[in-house]
Amino acid sequence: MTAELHLALYLSDAGIHAGGWRHPAADAPGDHGLDHYRRLTEAAERAKLDLVFIADKLAVDDIYGGDFATVLEHRPNTHLDPIVLLSALSSVTERIGLAATASTTYSEPFHVARMFASIDHLSGGRAAWNAVTSVSDGEARNFNRTEHLDHGTRYERAAEFLTAVRALWDTWDDGAVLADQRAGRFADAGKVRYADHDGEWFQVRGPLTVPRPPQGRPVIVQAGASGVFQRLAAENADLVFAVAPTLERGVEFYRGFKQQVREAGRAEHEVRVLPGIMPIVGETDEHAAEIERELRSLVLPIAGLTFMSASMNHDLSRYPVDGPVPDVRDEIRGSKGRFQHVIADAVERGLTLGELGAEYAATLSFPLVAGSPVTIADELQRWREAGACDGFVLMPAYVPGGVTDFFDHVVPELQRRGLFRTEYRGRTLRDHLGVDRP
Amino acid sequence: MTAELHLALYLSDAGIHAGGWRHPAADAPGDHGLDHYRRLTEAAERAKLDLVFIADKLAVDDIYGGDFATVLEHRPNTHLDPIVLLSALSSVTERIGLAATASTTYSEPFHVARMFASIDHLSGGRAAWNAVTSVSDGEARNFNRTEHLDHGTRYERAAEFLTAVRALWDTWDDGAVLADQRAGRFADAGKVRYADHDGEWFQVRGPLTVPRPPQGRPVIVQAGASGVFQRLAAENADLVFAVAPTLERGVEFYRGFKQQVREAGRAEHEVRVLPGIMPIVGETDEHAAEIERELRSLVLPIAGLTFMSASMNHDLSRYPVDGPVPDVRDEIRGSKGRFQHVIADAVERGLTLGELGAEYAATLSFPLVAGSPVTIADELQRWREAGACDGFVLMPAYVPGGVTDFFDHVVPELQRRGLFRTEYRGRTLRDHLGVDRP
Repeated sequence: MTAELHLALYLSDAGIHAGGWRHPAADAPGDHGLDHYRRLTEAAERAKLDLVFIADKLAVDDIYGGDFATVLEHRPNTHLDPIVLLSALSSVTERIGLAATASTTYSEPFHVARMFASIDHLSGGRAAWNAVTSVSDGEARNFNRTEHLDHGTRYERAAEFLTAVRALWDTWDDGAVLADQRAGRFADAGKVRYADHDGEWFQVRGPLTVPRPPQGRPVIVQAGASGVFQRLAAENADLVFAVAPTLERGVEFYRGFKQQVREAGRAEHEVRVLPGIMPIVGETDEHAAEIERELRSLVLPIAGLTFMSASMNHDLSRYPVDGPVPDVRDEIRGSKGRFQHVIADAVERGLTLGELGAEYAATLSFPLVAGSPVTIADELQRWREAGACDGFVLMPAYVPGGVTDFFDHVVPELQRRGLFRTEYRGRTLRDHLGVDRP
Repeated sequence: MTAELHLALYLSDAGIHAGGWRHPAADAPGDHGLDHYRRLTEAAERAKLDLVFIADKLAVDDIYGGDFATVLEHRPNTHLDPIVLLSALSSVTERIGLAATASTTYSEPFHVARMFASIDHLSGGRAAWNAVTSVSDGEARNFNRTEHLDHGTRYERAAEFLTAVRALWDTWDDGAVLADQRAGRFADAGKVRYADHDGEWFQVRGPLTVPRPPQGRPVIVQAGASGVFQRLAAENADLVFAVAPTLERGVEFYRGFKQQVREAGRAEHEVRVLPGIMPIVGETDEHAAEIERELRSLVLPIAGLTFMSASMNHDLSRYPVDGPVPDVRDEIRGSKGRFQHVIADAVERGLTLGELGAEYAATLSFPLVAGSPVTIADELQRWREAGACDGFVLMPAYVPGGVTDFFDHVVPELQRRGLFRTEYRGRTLRDHLGVDRP
């Protein structure tokens, strides 16, 4: 029997498909009251998902044309602070896991360690940290720099950052707090220690001001594709958010990465691999195809090019929109691992830059799975059985409809097949994921 | 008629009085689940308080004896991340204001601006930032330094930090987000601008990734006493959390500070001044005195000395506990403005160091107001009518009893006298405080 899937919901104000925010049934984007996020998260919890996931950018995209104007006119591009949003959601949910992004490039280990430890305490063991490196010059310019760190350097910093954070989480043993009111003894100081992290990037003494988190350590998520990324994640991550445009590429990544997990001295099941997918659920396959056509008709090609420019950290406004996709693989200074493939593939297929923009804008190169609930469940099962994943990050094309349809119709189908839980069995995110408490 | 008071609740896991956490009716300290904080905040909202306030330290105190052991054995000394806690409380409350501390010494303006703007959005305009400078070497050692910044330097950095944060909050005009789904126009980019902050400490380009907060700018709180502090607060703060051990000192501070507010070109009412007080409410004056005696009997003098050492950033373990208080005014490298007075006063009164420790531990030099509800209301009214304050920060001796007694018995007495609101009249914290939206 196929093992159960793990499912995460990618939370956003506007949906992932660049036409999604314009869908007639979509919530208005850029309204950052709690209600929208709360309804989505409650729906995910009713569907018994493992976790919700909040991505981030530390700047309004302004690489395309060297300014934010084209971006902001053409697509939603605002981001609440993910830790604030996650914390707000922690107190209106009870069981679902909660993951937020914090950059290792522009934060301090003490803050990050304490914030996620705090969410873990307040939520009773449901916190996860998506540890990323930041990729664009726009972000650098918000943090006292003119250019972002190069790929190798920012991964070196990330590795040390992760080491320091884990050391801080380990500064309090379980049971260190006594709170003995009668004897007047607050803690057993022998169960608390300095972290004494003394590295190249950071010197952090500790101890943390927060006792050991309920999960021991909050879950560590990492997202990426490059070789350097894979080595770091194999050593540190509990969950990997993967980008696999096709099943074949998914299988290839999964095999290679799990091999590295073993080489890092860990058991395979200790790191769950969840590729992102964009489900489009219809009553029938034809109905789903109709929704997809409708969404595609709402895409503004320029929106895709602004998004790609920011992620690649390379200004695509220099090339004519109607001309062929230029082979700029050597000029990518942002997300290398991912855009090497995107550009090579587009050049090979002879797309124009505008066509690539529209295509990328639709799915951000995540696989789009459109069809009836049975068709979608078949496809997810096929990925699982082919050894391409331990589950999926659901990236809704539009919200809330693009995800509530999945919860209402695909989740029950997966449950019927024994591919997804019908009730939470544990209290913590580690319980849901089946990864051990350190 | 005397103007209405503004009231804030100082939230903590353990109460402020060093005997408070040992009171038989106190919640166990160091348990950082949501329940304790949620119950306190809900009670404050039922009592129609202006706001709750979360303080912070970025290290476990370890100045006394050069180690954390004495501290952790003798008193609660853990702190959740205040922004995480505040965010969690934002989604389970509806009207009360929400203030959290973030250090200008060890944070980045972009993060702080975005976090408080985000809380302001999610809470519908109830966020406040308590902008502090960090004072102890223990904190410095958690952020890549061996010694904390000197007083002048950290205030220079704070001033620039505040300027950068305000510039970031101003990067989006009201109405910049259009979210025109039909036309495919997300924002009016002409209503968004770069902050282009280029200073000595920070270079921050902006714009923020969050549209203009509901309050225009979240409320800025500052806490302190020194002359440098007063100049900075007169220019920037909407609310000042003051330390005034006596009514006379309160009047002196209030007059001098409001004078500086006028000199900074602002109207007096634009900055509310709230001294901290510790109320101990009994059924009668004698009953309150009994509670105070009980709390005092639970104080461990060493707990006070560890607290003072951290705040002064000077190790008091070097002096005999039974000897006279040493005149160490010139060695204070932490909170100068405050401890100059504390030490001078203790030397003059001929206290031993242990006696000072016990006394300081009880109230942290905030005035303790013990008595029946009528007695306490009289005293608060006296402060207000003498021109010592615009209201108070309630610092409960123990929790929850030390504050719920105030809500249940003193608040109704203040309401009967027309000194406190019986219902919220506005939606935002600025509405509650009566300070204008910028």
